[in-house]
Amino acid sequence: MANKDSTDPARMEKIVSLCKRRGFIFQAGELYGGLNGCWDYGPLGAELKRNLKDYWWRKTVQERDDVLGMDGAILTMPQVLKSSGHLDSFSDPMCDCLLSKARLRADQVPAQDGTAVYFKGAKHEATGWSVERVFAVLVAPGKDPIESHKTARKFYGELMPDKKISPKELELIEDRREEVTGTTSFNPDNGSLLTDPREFNLMFKTKMGASADDNDPSSDAYLRPETAQSIFVQYKNVLDSNRIKLPFGIAQIGKSFRNEINPRNYTFRSREFEQMEIEYFCRPEDGLRLTDEWLEARLNFYAEIGIPREKLHILDIPDGERAFYSQKTYDIEYEFPFGVQELEGVAYRTDYDLGVHQKGSGKPLEYFDEETKERFLPHVVEPSAGCDRTVLALICEAYDFEKLTDEKGKDDSREVLRFVPRMAPVKVGIFPLLKKNEEQVRICKEIQKKLQPWMTVFYDDGGSVGKRYRRQDECGTPFCITVDFDTLGENGEELKNTVTIRHRDSMEQERLPVDSLLTWLLERVR
Amino acid sequence: MANKDSTDPARMEKIVSLCKRRGFIFQAGELYGGLNGCWDYGPLGAELKRNLKDYWWRKTVQERDDVLGMDGAILTMPQVLKSSGHLDSFSDPMCDCLLSKARLRADQVPAQDGTAVYFKGAKHEATGWSVERVFAVLVAPGKDPIESHKTARKFYGELMPDKKISPKELELIEDRREEVTGTTSFNPDNGSLLTDPREFNLMFKTKMGASADDNDPSSDAYLRPETAQSIFVQYKNVLDSNRIKLPFGIAQIGKSFRNEINPRNYTFRSREFEQMEIEYFCRPEDGLRLTDEWLEARLNFYAEIGIPREKLHILDIPDGERAFYSQKTYDIEYEFPFGVQELEGVAYRTDYDLGVHQKGSGKPLEYFDEETKERFLPHVVEPSAGCDRTVLALICEAYDFEKLTDEKGKDDSREVLRFVPRMAPVKVGIFPLLKKNEEQVRICKEIQKKLQPWMTVFYDDGGSVGKRYRRQDECGTPFCITVDFDTLGENGEELKNTVTIRHRDSMEQERLPVDSLLTWLLERVR
Repeated sequence: MANKDSTDPARMEKIVSLCKRRGFIFQAGELYGGLNGCWDYGPLGAELKRNLKDYWWRKTVQERDDVLGMDGAILTMPQVLKSSGHLDSFSDPMCDCLLSKARLRADQVPAQDGTAVYFKGAKHEATGWSVERVFAVLVAPGKDPIESHKTARKFYGELMPDKKISPKELELIEDRREEVTGTTSFNPDNGSLLTDPREFNLMFKTKMGASADDNDPSSDAYLRPETAQSIFVQYKNVLDSNRIKLPFGIAQIGKSFRNEINPRNYTFRSREFEQMEIEYFCRPEDGLRLTDEWLEARLNFYAEIGIPREKLHILDIPDGERAFYSQKTYDIEYEFPFGVQELEGVAYRTDYDLGVHQKGSGKPLEYFDEETKERFLPHVVEPSAGCDRTVLALICEAYDFEKLTDEKGKDDSREVLRFVPRMAPVKVGIFPLLKKNEEQVRICKEIQKKLQPWMTVFYDDGGSVGKRYRRQDECGTPFCITVDFDTLGENGEELKNTVTIRHRDSMEQERLPVDSLLTWLLERVR
Repeated sequence: MANKDSTDPARMEKIVSLCKRRGFIFQAGELYGGLNGCWDYGPLGAELKRNLKDYWWRKTVQERDDVLGMDGAILTMPQVLKSSGHLDSFSDPMCDCLLSKARLRADQVPAQDGTAVYFKGAKHEATGWSVERVFAVLVAPGKDPIESHKTARKFYGELMPDKKISPKELELIEDRREEVTGTTSFNPDNGSLLTDPREFNLMFKTKMGASADDNDPSSDAYLRPETAQSIFVQYKNVLDSNRIKLPFGIAQIGKSFRNEINPRNYTFRSREFEQMEIEYFCRPEDGLRLTDEWLEARLNFYAEIGIPREKLHILDIPDGERAFYSQKTYDIEYEFPFGVQELEGVAYRTDYDLGVHQKGSGKPLEYFDEETKERFLPHVVEPSAGCDRTVLALICEAYDFEKLTDEKGKDDSREVLRFVPRMAPVKVGIFPLLKKNEEQVRICKEIQKKLQPWMTVFYDDGGSVGKRYRRQDECGTPFCITVDFDTLGENGEELKNTVTIRHRDSMEQERLPVDSLLTWLLERVR
């Protein structure tokens, strides 16, 4: 079942199309043209994401004695982010395009030799823009600077087709031409000059409270750029309110926000995204060992949700490329159709985080070891996973376009999502063979009622059973139950009160007693 | 077990104290002084909230064939909120204090007769403030306007104790005094004049993308003030990607944000809060009936999570007090210790929401009824519950300070949270009678391992069993298991492999075979 074409770009198109068609993922605000970098999960996507989060919580918090959960606020005080370093250095160097006002990452627009031609001084009446802003273009070496005028005019026309330049304006422009030769940066989309790079903070800022002064910095608040900081800030409260000793972890699932300049790869790089983070506090001498242990635990987790070890790449980030405080960092990457990309980082962050918050808040965050009578700042190992990108990996890994031969020997095919049962949004489809047979429908509803408190069940009586199977294949439903005439006992006592169970992956069918269904399914879907 | 003193304010203090001490709820950013109106859930609070959300989802989505889930983005396009009306009218009328810059709700500062005394024109050098801003005070009728000067000076000194007014400045002030007599508003905190009321939008605004122009309105985005709008905006996508017919609902749990001027009553009125909303689409003629049906379903839900019908007040909002488009609205209120306050609204909103989005987006949102061949905008019934306030109601309802008599006949007491088992953050405590008995500890760990995939289990071996029970009482743990010498078979074969189960509420104990524990507990905690 390995998808050998897993890095095929056409594969990604099919996945995106299926996700829209079957209601996994929609663009946020699509009705109004869409909000770039933000996504809504439809009915199946919401269930898939819930399954992932629930299983992570179960494995990370519920089944471990050494990890406690928390659920912190998204809105965050500037002081917290000042201490953590996000306020000062969570930024990318950016250039602004003088023509389109687009902002570009400086490292993605390499400087080039050429001649920058400004047309200075005039105002463009229709827009109020100064002409120097509109008509600054780079001319490549060896080309005639005079040609730059046509280039500028072309882009100007494209951007504002209704606002053509009048002959009089052109005259003004010609008059005030000025040339600057040397190495400079230009916007590859339109040839316009760029400003010098400036640092652009990636955090979303808002104003809280009711200050009448819009520039009052005391009313600033930020959307958290990671869930980790609220764990560090509450570490002492959690420690004081629980009977727990080192090593122990605090785990959190929640939304974080980064104003990515260039959201891309479907839901992979979004501006709003959910994280599943653990901060695992320990004695300094245990940090490196625990980092390796957590890496192993996380790889097991991915295997359990259907992302096999062989599709993951583990990067051991070398010295000089890690954050300066980190003594060890592993990136866990997955082979997406659009390339190999990070799902999770497992980082040994030493006592950096508690240290900066102790300093920033002026309050002691040390741990007192009752046995050794030592007082020290715990070190931290952080397994930090992206929830949305793991959902996307689950979908990419599950997607299969399978060629088949139909009953008459003809070529056929199906799209199927081969989720492991515990991740599947719908666990069971349930069908009456004939929707007009009241007894079959009644038994279906009875079975459904018994299963529903334990799992998602989808009842379908539309079209042939074969078509209903295919629809469930596209949803990734691992099991389908059909209630037929045998169930009613019309073909003998032996088959009475049994149903057909059809397996999604093998398409094989078997017969099971109605009474055993709940137990049989629970063993397979949890 | 009814808490007769449930509206006692002292009761609220005890609850807040317990919540902090046991790690249910902490103020967000407490380490840095706290972020007003934002809260973090600690380990027990996070589990309690998860239980509530999971049970709501199970009852609302999983166990119903007619409701689908979704999970939408928090960041929202201005166009969506323009159509919904939030951009123009989701606001409170506010006045600004000229002295302190505090913003006050206009309806909470009634106008008064008196004389407003401005000291106009001079600049205060130390602060750069214009004196007219600093020294505007209201003088009550019959009092000497000249006295106002002292008042102003007093407040000025309090606000900026290090920046006393110099004699020269006083002269300037005296010179430029000006009186306005009539009815005006003043700040009850400091006597200063207020500006005329202006509408203050309650939505949090941020900037998205990388426009170089900070005033570019095309980069505005808002934190959603309710989850409902993303349901309406995606209604058509959900309908098109699912085989579903009217009536059907779309349900969502998620964070919403409102910049409340005056967050209060612990977590009840917060700036960041979670909602559990259903938009139930139906034929117009069914709207009123379905509103009543949903009210009933929601009341049953509250009973199932431990908030009995008799503690809820149902308000049938009369004509003229409902939103103009609503034909019926019920508020479900709970008797909090700080007063009777709303938990949920069940509103029949007609076709208002789909209507405004159809108009705003210019895209048809009509439903086509295959049977009647009619095309129309569905009507909507909206049961909208506050998640955090329901958590708070669960805690308030569960809290009990119980007087007891100890073994020696002395007065004793305990604090106990009487959660219904399905809501309890920890379902089972498990204790070895003696922590030094390896066999008891081993059996505890075995039982724990068996139960943990199904429920939260807390192992405790510290102190006497009595003390361990009391600690679990404070967490609301409904059952405690003790493994003792009987379990090991040291007092005969009959008790071998049995454990003590202690009930939180009655404090009674019974003996159960180890093998039956999982089934026995599952029947009681789900």
